[in-house]
Formats: sequence, C-alpha cells, structure tokens
Amino acid sequence: MCRWLAYAGHPIHPADLVLHPEHSLVAQSLDSPLGATTVNGDGFGVGWYPEPHDDEPAPPPAVYRSTEPAWNDENLREITSSVHSHLFFAHVRAATAPPTQRTNCHPFRHDNWLFMHNGSLADFAQVRRDLTLAVDPSLFPAIMGTTDSEVLFQLALTHGLVDDPVGAMRQAVGFVETVGRDHGIRFPIQMSVAVSDGATIWAFRYSSEGRSRSLFHSVDIATLQEMYPERADVLTEFGADARVIVSEPLSDLPGAFHEVPESTVAVVSGDDFEHRPFQPI
Amino acid sequence: MCRWLAYAGHPIHPADLVLHPEHSLVAQSLDSPLGATTVNGDGFGVGWYPEPHDDEPAPPPAVYRSTEPAWNDENLREITSSVHSHLFFAHVRAATAPPTQRTNCHPFRHDNWLFMHNGSLADFAQVRRDLTLAVDPSLFPAIMGTTDSEVLFQLALTHGLVDDPVGAMRQAVGFVETVGRDHGIRFPIQMSVAVSDGATIWAFRYSSEGRSRSLFHSVDIATLQEMYPERADVLTEFGADARVIVSEPLSDLPGAFHEVPESTVAVVSGDDFEHRPFQPI
Amino acid sequence: MCRWLAYAGHPIHPADLVLHPEHSLVAQSLDSPLGATTVNGDGFGVGWYPEPHDDEPAPPPAVYRSTEPAWNDENLREITSSVHSHLFFAHVRAATAPPTQRTNCHPFRHDNWLFMHNGSLADFAQVRRDLTLAVDPSLFPAIMGTTDSEVLFQLALTHGLVDDPVGAMRQAVGFVETVGRDHGIRFPIQMSVAVSDGATIWAFRYSSEGRSRSLFHSVDIATLQEMYPERADVLTEFGADARVIVSEPLSDLPGAFHEVPESTVAVVSGDDFEHRPFQPI
Amino acid sequence: MCRWLAYAGHPIHPADLVLHPEHSLVAQSLDSPLGATTVNGDGFGVGWYPEPHDDEPAPPPAVYRSTEPAWNDENLREITSSVHSHLFFAHVRAATAPPTQRTNCHPFRHDNWLFMHNGSLADFAQVRRDLTLAVDPSLFPAIMGTTDSEVLFQLALTHGLVDDPVGAMRQAVGFVETVGRDHGIRFPIQMSVAVSDGATIWAFRYSSEGRSRSLFHSVDIATLQEMYPERADVLTEFGADARVIVSEPLSDLPGAFHEVPESTVAVVSGDDFEHRPFQPI
Repeated sequence: MCRWLAYAGHPIHPADLVLHPEHSLVAQSLDSPLGATTVNGDGFGVGWYPEPHDDEPAPPPAVYRSTEPAWNDENLREITSSVHSHLFFAHVRAATAPPTQRTNCHPFRHDNWLFMHNGSLADFAQVRRDLTLAVDPSLFPAIMGTTDSEVLFQLALTHGLVDDPVGAMRQAVGFVETVGRDHGIRFPIQMSVAVSDGATIWAFRYSSEGRSRSLFHSVDIATLQEMYPERADVLTEFGADARVIVSEPLSDLPGAFHEVPESTVAVVSGDDFEHRPFQPI
Repeated sequence: MCRWLAYAGHPIHPADLVLHPEHSLVAQSLDSPLGATTVNGDGFGVGWYPEPHDDEPAPPPAVYRSTEPAWNDENLREITSSVHSHLFFAHVRAATAPPTQRTNCHPFRHDNWLFMHNGSLADFAQVRRDLTLAVDPSLFPAIMGTTDSEVLFQLALTHGLVDDPVGAMRQAVGFVETVGRDHGIRFPIQMSVAVSDGATIWAFRYSSEGRSRSLFHSVDIATLQEMYPERADVLTEFGADARVIVSEPLSDLPGAFHEVPESTVAVVSGDDFEHRPFQPI
Repeated sequence: MCRWLAYAGHPIHPADLVLHPEHSLVAQSLDSPLGATTVNGDGFGVGWYPEPHDDEPAPPPAVYRSTEPAWNDENLREITSSVHSHLFFAHVRAATAPPTQRTNCHPFRHDNWLFMHNGSLADFAQVRRDLTLAVDPSLFPAIMGTTDSEVLFQLALTHGLVDDPVGAMRQAVGFVETVGRDHGIRFPIQMSVAVSDGATIWAFRYSSEGRSRSLFHSVDIATLQEMYPERADVLTEFGADARVIVSEPLSDLPGAFHEVPESTVAVVSGDDFEHRPFQPI
Repeated sequence: MCRWLAYAGHPIHPADLVLHPEHSLVAQSLDSPLGATTVNGDGFGVGWYPEPHDDEPAPPPAVYRSTEPAWNDENLREITSSVHSHLFFAHVRAATAPPTQRTNCHPFRHDNWLFMHNGSLADFAQVRRDLTLAVDPSLFPAIMGTTDSEVLFQLALTHGLVDDPVGAMRQAVGFVETVGRDHGIRFPIQMSVAVSDGATIWAFRYSSEGRSRSLFHSVDIATLQEMYPERADVLTEFGADARVIVSEPLSDLPGAFHEVPESTVAVVSGDDFEHRPFQPI
C-alpha cells in the first residue's frame, strides 16, 4: 500500500524526481490519487548506486531509510539534492501492519542488489511462519524486520535472484501462492516490485487476483522534456536513455507515462526497455 | 492547521476520546474533513491532569509529545489507555512551517497551565522577532521551539494569563494584530485556542478575518450516550458534567456537537458551561 | 549488556527509583560501573501495572518504550513522574547487536505478563533460526523484533510460563543450552531475567558459565530509609513490604543491597521474599 | 561539551575518519578521554561539500543531522561511506542543556558556510535574550534551535563572517564577553569553533578563562600514513595536502597530532596551514 519510483539513466540528483515534480514521490506521500491508501506516512527509503570515484570499482548501493514521514524529513532533502546517481530507488510506505521501524522500510539490500515492493501478502500473520522457514538458513539471520516484503525478498534470494531474477521471482511468487492457498487464502499476493543489481532494473506487476497495483513507465526523454519545460536544463542532462518506472505518473501530462500491463515484467537496461509476460511457477 | 480536543468531566482514559470514536483525534490526524489540511502528521501531544494519589495535592499536568504521526505511535496508545484524567488536552499537528520537533508540539505548559492552538499567525517569519521581544524577559528562556503558537502562549503569560485568562488573551491577540498590521499584514491571526489551569477550560475561537477555524462543543452527556451506544459503559462513567470541546465533531450523529460561534470564548468549569463574546483589545 | 530494575510494594511514582536516586537507572544508562558495557544508550523501556480505577478490574500492564537514550527522553520524565504503580519494570539497553528499534526494547509483554533480560544468548545469529522455529506457532506472529531476549521470552511462554514460571524458565533455558551446544557454543546463555504477572516478580540469575551478570535485591525498607534520608517522605509511603531488584545497587550505602546468588531465582510476592536454586532442565 | 572533526584535502569518504580510526569521532561519541563529558550521545551531524558533477558550479554544502547517538545511526554509516568530499565537518553532541532536537545539532549552515562549536556560553539562559536581540533582524528568522552555539554563529554572521571570518569572530566573541560580564559572568565563553566556506577552514581555540577545550591538528600526511599502515591505500589517496583538525587525536601514535595553542586561530587552505593569535575585540 505504498508508492515507489525507480530511475535509470544519466546520473542526476534523486531530488529531481523524488522532491520536485508536480506529483513527486514526496507529494504522493501526502496525497496519492491512485494508491490503495491516500497517505503514505509510515516511513520511506532511498537506495542509490553512487557514481564510481576516480578509478575505484563500482561502489555498492547506499540506503537511507527513516521512519519519519517523507514530507518532513530534512535529511531526505539534503541527501537527494547532493548525491548523484545513474540508478536509484525511492519508496514511501503506508504500513499494512505495524510497527513503523527502519528495518521495515524499503528498499531492502543484499550485496549489490536492491528490492522494493508495493502491495501485500494477504493474511501475512497466518503464513509468516511457513514462509520464513522456507528462507535459506544462510539468509535467515539477515531478516531484521517484520514485513511481508522483506520475506518475499529473502524468498527470491533463496530461489536464485542473483543468478536469474525473473526465474527466481516466478518461483518465489509461486511458492507464496501455494502456501497461501494451503491456508485457504484466495488471493495470496498483490505486488509491484522493483529489483536491481545496479545495471538493470526488473519491475514486476502481478497479483493473484489479476487486479494489480498500478505501475507506469516513462515514455522517452523527449516526452519528459515536454512535461517539464521549466526543468529543461535538468532534462537535457538525462540523456536519451533515461527511464522512470513508478507507481503513479509524476505528471498529469497525457501520454507521458504508459501503464505496465498486468502480469508483466519490465526490464530496463542501458538503452533497452522491454516487457515480458510474468507468471509464477 | 491542526486538530485538537479538550475534555473535562469524570475521570476517563483519554483513549476513549483520542483513539476510539468514529472521528477520534487520531482518525482525524489521517483524514480531517473540516481541517485546512487533511493530514495532521507532523507530531502530536497529550497533556493531562493526573488524579491525585491518596491525599497528595493536585499534581501538575503531565505532557506526552512526539514527532511521530499519531496514528503510528504505540506509546500514545499505551499512555492514553492506562492513565485516568478528569481534564486533558490532545492535539495533532499539521505544520505550517518546519521543523518537526518535540518542542513545536502542543500542548505547551507553564506551571499548572496547558495551552494549545489551531491556526496560525500570518507571515510569522516577518513578525517573529517583534513578538518574541515583547515576551517578558523572565519568560524568554522558556521558549524552546519555533512556532507562532508558543510565542502566542508566552505573550498571553506576559499579559497575565495566570490571573485573568480572558483579559490576557484579549491583550495578547490585540498585540499580535497591532504588530501584524504594522508589518502590512491584513489578517494577522487565525486561532482556536484552549487554555486550562486544571479546573477550568477556556476555549477561544477568533480570527482577524472573521472566518475562524471550526470549533465545537458537545451538547450534554445524554446526547453523547445516544451517539455511542456501543460505549454506553464508558459514557455512564462520565457523569452528567462531562464536556468535550473539539476542532471537529467526533461523530456524524446530528445534534451531538454544536458550533462555538465566531469571536467567542467558551468556559467550562465543573457543571458550568457558558459562551461569552471575545474581542481583542 | 543492559541494566534493569523491578519494584514491588506500595504504589509510588516510578521516577522515584528510575530518575532520582544517586545511581538511578537513568544515571546507570550513562555510566554503569558494574555493567559489561558502561553506556546503556540504545533505547529503554518502562512497564507498569496501573492502579485499578474505582472498582474496575486490575488493568493490564502499560509499556512505554523508546529508542532514544533514557537520559534525554523528556517523555520518560513525564510518564514516570505522573503515573503510580505498585509493580513496575524499567530497563536501559546496550545493544549487543543492531538494530536500535522500539520492538527490541524491553520489557516485552504477553497479556498481563512482563519480561526483561540483561545478558545474551551467545552467537545468537547462529542459533536464531533453530530457536525461533521452536516457538509455538500460535506465538510466532507476536515476534516483532530481532533480539535474543524476545525469543527467550517466547520460548518460556511456549514452555508454559503462564502456568509455571520457574518450570518454564528451567525448560526454556535448558533448551537454549542444548541448541547452543549442538552448534558448538561453549556457554550458550548469560542472563538476569525478571518476569511478572502483576502480583509476583520472579528474578532469575543464571549463566552457562557460572559467572552471571550482577543482580541485587534491596534489604528492607528500614535500610532504604537510612539510604535516602533526603527522601524520607517518599520512603515512608513505600510501606514495609517494598522490594527492589536491580542489576546494580541504587546507592553506595554499604549493606543496602544484597547480591542474589548465582543460579538462583528470587521470588517477590506481597510480604514474601525468598531465594531458590535455579537449574535448567 | 562535544567533539568535532574537520577535514580538508583530496576527496575521501568521510567514513574513513568518522567511523574507522582507532579513536574515530564515532568511537569518541561513546568514550571521549579528553572531553568534558565522556559520552557524546545527544545527536550528531555531518556537513560536507559535495564534489562538483561534470561542469556544474561548486554545489552548496549538504548537512545530515540526527538526534540519535552516532554509534547507532545506520544512516550515518551509509552516507559517510558513499559520499566523497574534499572538505567536511563532523560533530557529536553532549548537550549542556536540553532539548535534543535536530535543530540543535551541528554543523549549522548559512548559504555556503558551515559552523560547529565545542564548548559553551556560560549561563546561557541569562544572556540568551540579549544575545538573540543583537542578531541582525534579517538573520533572526533563521534561528531554529535553542543552543548557544547557533546564536554565536548568527552573531558572527551579523558581524560580517562572510567577508572577514577572523574579524567577525573577534567581534562576536568580544560581544559575548561584554554581555556576559554585564550579567556578572566571570568567564562568559569557552570554545573550539570550526568555520568554512568550502575552500578554507578557520579553527578557533579560545576561552575567557584561558583554559580552552582541547584542539589538535594532524601533522602531515606522511605521519598519518605511519599512523594507519592498515589503511595505507586510503591514505595514499589523501594527497600531501590533507589536514585534519579535531577535538581529540584520532590515534594514540605519538607525534601524529599537535595541539593548537590557546587563543589561536588555525587556517587551512589548500597547501597552506598557519596559526595566528586570536583575541576578541
């Protein structure tokens, strides 16, 4: 019941998308027209891949997460306005269940992987134990929070996310559906999920019910530039390869954002952008 | 741009009004139909006069204030569900200006006095210095936050709130209007304010513009009992003298809450409840 | 690596022990001479059994927990100075492992039971999964944090804490030692634990190594009164039955606090105070 | 009663000095041998000048401040490990007076200027009003906290810090001493202060008493490299021009840090490093 945004392209300040547009993620945290809940005030997070410094190897992603409402967090403004990144995630949370704590804030991280989720695993309290036990014992100590999202991430890692992100998500979601149905839950999962290794973003839109949370992708930079004429200077920097995937359009400009279809994974990698059908195994 | 509630009557758990009713203050913090802003997520506070223990003298009011959104604060549930009080204030904040910090949360306290405010002093940054300098030097060190509300309270104390609450408020508001107009501000103040010494509540509704924030008082206990049949057990405890003054009705039940008129001070003291016209000097 | 205090006796303000004495728990949070760590700044908690109001049944315990250092928390001062309680727990945490979050703060609660722990389960990351799986599935959803202490509490509940506190602790500790030794851990547990149902306090001092964290009990009220002549007024209120159990003496006065022996459970109930040997099963 | 560190030189991750050395600032926050208080757990802050991106102009400094103890703040680790900076400040606070709030955390910022302070203005509650009134009215609205340090910064700005940092500090400190003595305060100020515009660091050590808080500067990079042989890779990156000014040496290695003399301002700018006598006007 959250909102999120993923960006890949020429390095920019995350604030350019997280704070500034008409329907920026922070604006959505206070009033989200398409969200299942209108207020997303139960914490937030930003994860970014820093630009390599001199000739150092690609640094691991950094994560800033806080339990304050995003609209109030002055540190969020400082950080997203000062760092540069070619690939970043941002997420505002509307908790389906307490508690509000940093370890329940997205994105989650494993080595150089980031993961964030909008949606829920239905009746999670019922299935939490079975799902948690299915997490690989070597990953178990990494579970630090109480969310369904974190367990979904750990299950995807258990099923090989690092080697085959789409295959692992198909298996993890299939497992969640099997366990859920064993507990008599009709529609066990509802999700829009973003995953990245720093080079590629995989964005999944799926729900057992076939009525998934909204998910959009930006059309292309030329259209974005029309959307934000007042920010033309920034948009020129994006380069032609920039892409934004987001729970809700960042602008009312018709045509700027296209909906990602149901049961689909969108893959963003360099200049490439493609959709593929997504079905759990 | 906040919401508040003040209760006087037979001792109850504040949670009975702060957490439980249909439009409880915590519910209003997420969605406030009559408020100038719909989300009041920038901190909150509860101030209560504890019941005397054995034969000890009346204890001073206690204050619990936090910068978390009220809807998420588990400590708020614990405290308001466990303490008893015959007179308490509760306030949820929607900041007109940053920062969100505990010292900007209401209610404010001076000895046995509590004070809370919904509304604003227009263009406060312009007048802040002049108003602050007018605070009695002996009170100056008590200023711990950055809000217009705290300065208004200190000005009221400067003008003799402890001895004559209505007179001091008339002078403090008059002074704010004079300073504001000297700075070219057309409508310098907008307010609904509650003040108490532990025995009486004074509730002020006033604005320079003559279009003040909403303010309501509960009609009488018999009506309240009709409103909450499911809570009849609690309401029986209230006794016939219980009164609630609140920014917005706690229930949709027609007739349960009456609007406090413009430019009015409502005084609640034991069995007495009266309205008087309020005009700044 | 924490410090804690448990009180039973005539109702007092918890602040009288938590804030005011020479070596109060809050003073210990900044500088703890006997603790394994000198600073206990990673959150704290207070749990108290409120006094029944009028003829209502005994209310459940309330818990105030926060991640701020205790020495800075103004809400802690407000709450412990305004509530009254005949039985309360207070705990300051020095985290053996991150994260610092409210759900990792003591005391933990189950219905009318409170539980707090100083010490650690050795190499908890190694045994966490096995211990968590041994928690009764009906209790599993209640696990909200990441501490060894919370799992120990859930294991004790699994083994029947509600019906037989000492027997359940013997079994839970025995189970922890068995699992630990199966993982090659020489000394699996180190603990001083307090448990209460609101009428009785059970305080356990035990470690696999036979070198347990310090634990003390106050001698009797006459001695306490000698300790705090400046607080004689308060101490008179305690009544002759008051007892304090604490990680470290609250005063340097020789003779005021006696050490609880190794491998012992101390039981405080009304006028009764007794020691019994404690051995895991 | 705080600890601070200022770095200028080749761009590094602030974590290399803030988190990693033997006596890093975070280590000092838990145990500060030379500090007036041993625990500095009342919030902290980091301010850094980000590296310009592509051909953009020099960006303004970013500030991350939090009220959590530095040793627990996972966001601090993330940020100081991922950003690069050629000039940064870090500060851990031990409050001489409440409250602990973000607006009381250092460094303070004005446009491209950063400021931080260890020490205190004696009897600040007595002189706060007079000093605050002496702040230029155009700067008054920027006062967001309650510390003596913030008022000292605003006074220095009032006296022309931006144009003549040393002259303005001489006047501001002289004014503080005059006002203090008018209030019968014998030793009105105690300070080690760092100020920067992003190119130069001015570090002041002064106290009315002539017994100032400790202040040290690193000798030169060759010595630093001897200090941290295990971090030789990092130190090589520093370049020969790197300088650290700090409340306490970051290492026990004899000779690595030299004390800044009493009543002195140290100026670090590019390759230049010099001491000058400092006396208030």
